[in-house]
Amino acid sequence: MRTPVMPSRGTLHPLGTAEVRLTGGHWGERQAVNAAATIRHCLRWLEDLEWIGNFDRAAAGAPFARAGREFSDSEVYKLAEAMAWEIGRTGDPGLEEEFAKLTARIGAAQREDGYLSTAFGNPGQEPRYTDLEWGHELYCYGHLIQAAVARLRNHGEDDFTRLARRVADHVCDVFGPGGIERICGHAEIEVALAELSRATGEPRYLEQARLFIERHGQKTLQEHGFYYQDDVAVRDAEVLRGHAVRALYLASGAVDVAVETGDAALLDAVRRQWGRAVDRRTHLTGGMGSQFADEAFGPDFALAPDRAYSESCAGIAAVMTAWRLTLATGESHYGDMIERIAWNVLSGAVAPDGTSFFYANPLHVRTADPEPPGDRALPHVRAGGRRARWFDVSCCPTNLSRTFAQFAVYVATTDDRGVQIHQYAPATIEAAPGGTRFALAVATAYPDDGAVTVRVEANDGGERTIALRVPAWAEGAVLTGPDGTARPAEPGTFAEVTADFRAGDEIRLDLPVAPRWTRPDPRVDAVRGCAAVEQGPLVLCAESVDLPGGDLDGLTVDTAVPPVLRDGRVHVAAQVRDRGDGWPYGPARADEEGKPAELPLVPFRLRATRGPAAMRVWLPVV
Amino acid sequence: MRTPVMPSRGTLHPLGTAEVRLTGGHWGERQAVNAAATIRHCLRWLEDLEWIGNFDRAAAGAPFARAGREFSDSEVYKLAEAMAWEIGRTGDPGLEEEFAKLTARIGAAQREDGYLSTAFGNPGQEPRYTDLEWGHELYCYGHLIQAAVARLRNHGEDDFTRLARRVADHVCDVFGPGGIERICGHAEIEVALAELSRATGEPRYLEQARLFIERHGQKTLQEHGFYYQDDVAVRDAEVLRGHAVRALYLASGAVDVAVETGDAALLDAVRRQWGRAVDRRTHLTGGMGSQFADEAFGPDFALAPDRAYSESCAGIAAVMTAWRLTLATGESHYGDMIERIAWNVLSGAVAPDGTSFFYANPLHVRTADPEPPGDRALPHVRAGGRRARWFDVSCCPTNLSRTFAQFAVYVATTDDRGVQIHQYAPATIEAAPGGTRFALAVATAYPDDGAVTVRVEANDGGERTIALRVPAWAEGAVLTGPDGTARPAEPGTFAEVTADFRAGDEIRLDLPVAPRWTRPDPRVDAVRGCAAVEQGPLVLCAESVDLPGGDLDGLTVDTAVPPVLRDGRVHVAAQVRDRGDGWPYGPARADEEGKPAELPLVPFRLRATRGPAAMRVWLPVV
Repeated sequence: MRTPVMPSRGTLHPLGTAEVRLTGGHWGERQAVNAAATIRHCLRWLEDLEWIGNFDRAAAGAPFARAGREFSDSEVYKLAEAMAWEIGRTGDPGLEEEFAKLTARIGAAQREDGYLSTAFGNPGQEPRYTDLEWGHELYCYGHLIQAAVARLRNHGEDDFTRLARRVADHVCDVFGPGGIERICGHAEIEVALAELSRATGEPRYLEQARLFIERHGQKTLQEHGFYYQDDVAVRDAEVLRGHAVRALYLASGAVDVAVETGDAALLDAVRRQWGRAVDRRTHLTGGMGSQFADEAFGPDFALAPDRAYSESCAGIAAVMTAWRLTLATGESHYGDMIERIAWNVLSGAVAPDGTSFFYANPLHVRTADPEPPGDRALPHVRAGGRRARWFDVSCCPTNLSRTFAQFAVYVATTDDRGVQIHQYAPATIEAAPGGTRFALAVATAYPDDGAVTVRVEANDGGERTIALRVPAWAEGAVLTGPDGTARPAEPGTFAEVTADFRAGDEIRLDLPVAPRWTRPDPRVDAVRGCAAVEQGPLVLCAESVDLPGGDLDGLTVDTAVPPVLRDGRVHVAAQVRDRGDGWPYGPARADEEGKPAELPLVPFRLRATRGPAAMRVWLPVV
Repeated sequence: MRTPVMPSRGTLHPLGTAEVRLTGGHWGERQAVNAAATIRHCLRWLEDLEWIGNFDRAAAGAPFARAGREFSDSEVYKLAEAMAWEIGRTGDPGLEEEFAKLTARIGAAQREDGYLSTAFGNPGQEPRYTDLEWGHELYCYGHLIQAAVARLRNHGEDDFTRLARRVADHVCDVFGPGGIERICGHAEIEVALAELSRATGEPRYLEQARLFIERHGQKTLQEHGFYYQDDVAVRDAEVLRGHAVRALYLASGAVDVAVETGDAALLDAVRRQWGRAVDRRTHLTGGMGSQFADEAFGPDFALAPDRAYSESCAGIAAVMTAWRLTLATGESHYGDMIERIAWNVLSGAVAPDGTSFFYANPLHVRTADPEPPGDRALPHVRAGGRRARWFDVSCCPTNLSRTFAQFAVYVATTDDRGVQIHQYAPATIEAAPGGTRFALAVATAYPDDGAVTVRVEANDGGERTIALRVPAWAEGAVLTGPDGTARPAEPGTFAEVTADFRAGDEIRLDLPVAPRWTRPDPRVDAVRGCAAVEQGPLVLCAESVDLPGGDLDGLTVDTAVPPVLRDGRVHVAAQVRDRGDGWPYGPARADEEGKPAELPLVPFRLRATRGPAAMRVWLPVV
């Protein structure tokens, strides 16, 4: 089945990209833009910057001036994964040809014993595995192996999957018991090996993944144990911490290992860590990596919107973790977070045309940055400003590409009783609960419109249950059964209809997507006295381009007035003030009356698409 | 005159440590503790860590394993400066002996041509001046030269001052026109050379200082021009920016050069930059370096209390700049900032016993850090936690020591008309406005008590003016003249009494030191909806050790109730709530009623003296 995660046990079973097909809507469009533009864009940049060329030069065997950062091989592998998903979906022969060429070039650089790196172990380079903290060799393997899993499930064995298995065997040989009993500074190999074990049936890979998971916290890395999650054992940690992408890749691998080995304590540990990170270390957008420093989870409730890192790749990693927990537990709230992250962080990280990207996704940009991102300048991180075409550390473009290519799998799952729908998008769903066909079609303009209609296309199995995720924010949601009777659908649960469905039957979920005011917990100090507007799963923001004078600093909003939709945009009642200079602390003063204004908002994911702008999600109330 | 800054022109003239003597009170005590404990403490650490030993090894001429960071020489020089001030004040023969020994050891490492460094140019080290960005050679010279100025003014020429002049001559030879026309990555040489020119009458040093000032902004440093203030010319910049200590040392040097060369445009530029930094980039404590990232001034109004860097050395550098601007302009608001910084940042950066220190001084510490700072572990920066005895980058202890040793000079100035008192402390002041003696004695328990009494001890010159700084916060201040008549003293000005004073005459300034609520400008997003308590110049804070359960996160305060003094401590009315878990964003909810509590506060400078504690200056109102 064409799915990135296929547990051998768990509460819910995934469906693949052959079973769930996006038939339009936002995610269908993101998928189409990814196929038409982003994959080619990434391929061109990887070629132009010679990050693919590194493999040719490593294969040639002579010393060479290597291009890119030490982990640039992983970008090639993540793009290969995106291509594998896309080839599986469309059979695009041009892409298949590119994939074969890429395979040959990567494979040529592989050593006899399976070792494969363009950054270590080649003439003139440091020896292999001499810098586990920062060398990223195992991290790169992880992405290679995830690409191979995608290829195995979308195509079957080929040269690419064989070279990846040689890498995996090599890792087990070198890092197994009695070998180098340490970990990589950047988790990723764990989740990859666990899935390769599922995809190949080879238990050795799962065992190696388990060993890597258990070695975290044994302090085998020289420094920064916290950053690398090497300070405390995964099963003992109370909360996600340190570098956010690392933390969430590790958590994903830990879920896989816990599920496959029946390790309930390890699964509970990740659930606990995830829950506390969501409650205390996550931005309204679902953005994780609450602070710029170390690209890390900050302390509880330290959620400054202007210092939010909220890296695009951390969003992807959080979706990976939440999806594995969805399958393991069957609980709906993990899907809530996937929805929040997907609509705000992931979709907003790519420009509508698919060829420029945000690396960091802060919720407040103080000043409009007039400077367009350099084309060849390779900014390391752009916080605010506009999307960039590529980065020095360019993890996000290829990571977003592989995620959009596989996004259909997050829409629905199945179990013996029926089908569960987690994300709302126009789609067809082919499932076979209990072994008999159950086909559905979802029609919706969500979240522009709150109505989600599920039509039964075929049912060969009698009584079934269709379960629809009701987001926790959806107070007032209504479920209408096939007989036309409506009933309230409780937020934070699955709303279920059980019936002997016939082809043509329809059920409907109406979600309340009117824009609404949202307030922060008082412990989130950095946004005290502010409110934000959400609309369904969308977080909205104000941009200075919509404000005469362009100054967001003198703004207050009136939350007694509900946000209104007018001319296709959400507006809130605001006051705008000019504020003078002087020592900014003193006795309480009645603020002078401001100029009333109706402030139009824009979805966070569409920020910075109309030129340079200051931006804020959290709008001052006081 | 024993003073660190002696301009040849300007509005006000400094007095030295022989003219102003602290006779007790807080600053007298800080000076005494510095003399009795801090200087010895620093000397011992510099010896034990072999940062002084580096000079012996450099002198020996063989390759050696160097101790400490590349700029550790500067710590030895700053301590020498502290010793020079202290020797001048007390004539302590033990300290004089130590100073002579230190001089011999430093001097032995100096080369024929004046070059002096233990980090560059010695056998096995990189050649001299090969890393101006990060080598800190000129920065170290700057501190050596400031120590020499202190020595010249407290003692006169000796081996120390001669070796420093050889260094200064060498700098002019090598970095003058036609030489290396670049700057040091860390400003400091500018302010030092300008003062050495004043102390020696040698115009060449002033000209070299001017050249360094003008070279800033010419982008002669390879990277991070912003960080180094090498992005824009000093005279063109609108605001202090980049690394805060660098920015403020540079600003201090620019004032000196502007004053000595009559460059009004340069002086205005620094005044403008200072003003905007105070209005938009300064914490309530007077702390500059508003953010951890790069130890830098952040963007306007980006003043998150938990991410405040507010480095102790940036406080010292800000006092240096503000003092120079006081002398140049005669305006009282610079003294307001010196007072604020001194009472909150500087005094709090040293433990009451003088042997442990804060490097960073954030205004919010989220969790009590139970771990005591390592003794030999040399933490780089401790934010929160407890004070440390030394640091890897240990710029602050010696810098604080030299500042406390010279603190008396900030108390008063003179001009032709009389005496201006800027800081309130028990002190005697010997001045000679117009060439005739005018001696005063200040008695006060400020800020515990708001009364400041100035008694005329002698007046040989007829009509004089005594001017007393009335802080901008001091609404309701009252000035009582020698005849007993009282009148309001306007905040933000000097309150003046002009009279034909006789010995025994007294005037009195009553400053309102009752604790008061202070609110932030709404543009300071990070503390919206909060209030702080100030008491005179003191900023107060809440510590978790004073709260049952120790949780500052569930706290709100009632600003309708004025803070009250009871049993020697300030208390505010508060409510304490237990808050549960869950997604921290949602519809507005009436907060459940909290448990009323009377929350005792503690001066910010005394935080973390009663064991590990969470702490916050800004107390939530909503």
